Amino acid sequence: MPRSVAWIAVIGPGRCSAAEAAVAEEVGAAVAEAGAVLVCGGLGGVMEAACRGARSAGGETVGLLPGFDREDANGWVRIALPTGLGEARNALVVRSADALVAVGGAFGTLSEIALGLRARLPVIGLGTWELARGGRPEPGIVAMEDPREAVAEALRRVHAS
Amino acid sequence: MPRSVAWIAVIGPGRCSAAEAAVAEEVGAAVAEAGAVLVCGGLGGVMEAACRGARSAGGETVGLLPGFDREDANGWVRIALPTGLGEARNALVVRSADALVAVGGAFGTLSEIALGLRARLPVIGLGTWELARGGRPEPGIVAMEDPREAVAEALRRVHAS
Amino acid sequence: MPRSVAWIAVIGPGRCSAAEAAVAEEVGAAVAEAGAVLVCGGLGGVMEAACRGARSAGGETVGLLPGFDREDANGWVRIALPTGLGEARNALVVRSADALVAVGGAFGTLSEIALGLRARLPVIGLGTWELARGGRPEPGIVAMEDPREAVAEALRRVHAS
Amino acid sequence: MPRSVAWIAVIGPGRCSAAEAAVAEEVGAAVAEAGAVLVCGGLGGVMEAACRGARSAGGETVGLLPGFDREDANGWVRIALPTGLGEARNALVVRSADALVAVGGAFGTLSEIALGLRARLPVIGLGTWELARGGRPEPGIVAMEDPREAVAEALRRVHAS
Repeated sequence: MPRSVAWIAVIGPGRCSAAEAAVAEEVGAAVAEAGAVLVCGGLGGVMEAACRGARSAGGETVGLLPGFDREDANGWVRIALPTGLGEARNALVVRSADALVAVGGAFGTLSEIALGLRARLPVIGLGTWELARGGRPEPGIVAMEDPREAVAEALRRVHAS
Repeated sequence: MPRSVAWIAVIGPGRCSAAEAAVAEEVGAAVAEAGAVLVCGGLGGVMEAACRGARSAGGETVGLLPGFDREDANGWVRIALPTGLGEARNALVVRSADALVAVGGAFGTLSEIALGLRARLPVIGLGTWELARGGRPEPGIVAMEDPREAVAEALRRVHAS
Repeated sequence: MPRSVAWIAVIGPGRCSAAEAAVAEEVGAAVAEAGAVLVCGGLGGVMEAACRGARSAGGETVGLLPGFDREDANGWVRIALPTGLGEARNALVVRSADALVAVGGAFGTLSEIALGLRARLPVIGLGTWELARGGRPEPGIVAMEDPREAVAEALRRVHAS
Repeated sequence: MPRSVAWIAVIGPGRCSAAEAAVAEEVGAAVAEAGAVLVCGGLGGVMEAACRGARSAGGETVGLLPGFDREDANGWVRIALPTGLGEARNALVVRSADALVAVGGAFGTLSEIALGLRARLPVIGLGTWELARGGRPEPGIVAMEDPREAVAEALRRVHAS
């Protein structure tokens, strides 16, 4: 894996709607087609759909699992690491990534978005959280609608930084 | 420390306004006066002000530091633990707590709020993040204005659960 | 807690003989009488006996638990932190300490001894592991026999460093 | 990566002798030729030699780095993960593995051996630590001399368990 290859974290809930899964799968495919590595939390829902998209397009998928059992990984994770850190592994997903693409999102996803923004990584959102303080929207998450454009934007920002 | 004692995490940015510091100090005092333990990230800003409030009221303060040096702790932390985990220590702050009180907030604070909500802990906010999805506010953070009432509400929810 | 106070990790197995418990209890008492903080893994066996010794002498005890439940701590831990990191919390016990005193020892203890030696901390052993390579004993662990002398030696090395 | 594929951790110091590097390289080659994944700490010395051996034989290599920078990985690591956990990442190397092969060894290696034995994983040693208690050798590390036989023995034990 040349060091120049980008790593994109695809984050989202372990259970998701069919529409979210379709978006995540296309995100995964776009990551793979760009030659980037897809890293995620390794479980179901958005993570599984994204990995399926990436593997179907011949890409690399890495899953950082919260538990101790490699078998917990969805079937499309090629490199599955049982960290045993629980939700503290979210920090490792973020540390592994050059940019984040969030699809949908529950509170675990929000913790990864927050750590990504704190680390000044690009964070692209597809139907995910909206942040505000004092009634005013806070910048940070780049809200987009098209999965392929979201990945392209993430990579543009990685290469610009 | 009887096991019945509640642990309240006071979370907030390492640099804050004088107004936020005043709020945090009163939160810390209320935590101490209720006989609860204050746990935080151990650094400056909101964390320092909260610890000062707690110690001045004779309370217990625990700081979980991101780095390796106990000297990084603010001077009001009594039990300072250098975790060396970086921002992954945020997960440990949340795991140590029975409830969270957020004062102000940057992205690190948001990651703790998210992990707290994921763990179904009470999360009380004083001038902190507002969350929405699809243009609709998301419940989760209990927004309050008075520091002492915020602590009382946190403890009420701990004891009700 | 003044920053000048030393932190001594007392490490050893979660199940131990009565003789080991007696040694650990005296180690704990000596730590407390020296005004140092005792940090440990928070569970039973050597950890519990050491905490009992320290608390009976009016000292401070901190337990870094592997699991998520504060109730797992032995009854003599005053500050119990559920890390949820499993055995990875051993690294945090070592990071919190200025010196280690090992009593007896199973493999978890050996991992802490190893991390302590790697961090160039003083490691005093009471009936613990002996290390060799190529048939020759390896220096590192300071083997002693008297619990109170072991603590005194640990503190001497902390203050000399 | 079928779930049936074994993961072998090759552990050893970040600086090593030419003889140790030759042994590690052959270990890595044998891991790859057996179709197993090689996981390690991702840095130099034994880790680099083992990865070189594995990659030269067309195998898969995963490096779990202590720091935050992917660039710290040796050039033969294909999947490099910057954990930012410092030596606490040793626990993750062990959790990722079905068996450990230790080549030479400093204290960091000893911590991984200890965690591996604690988790009841097979631990094969090539010129590494010897453990004793009370003057009697302790079983645990299986000392061998031939790198290829060491890997074969590790895999035999994985498949027997």
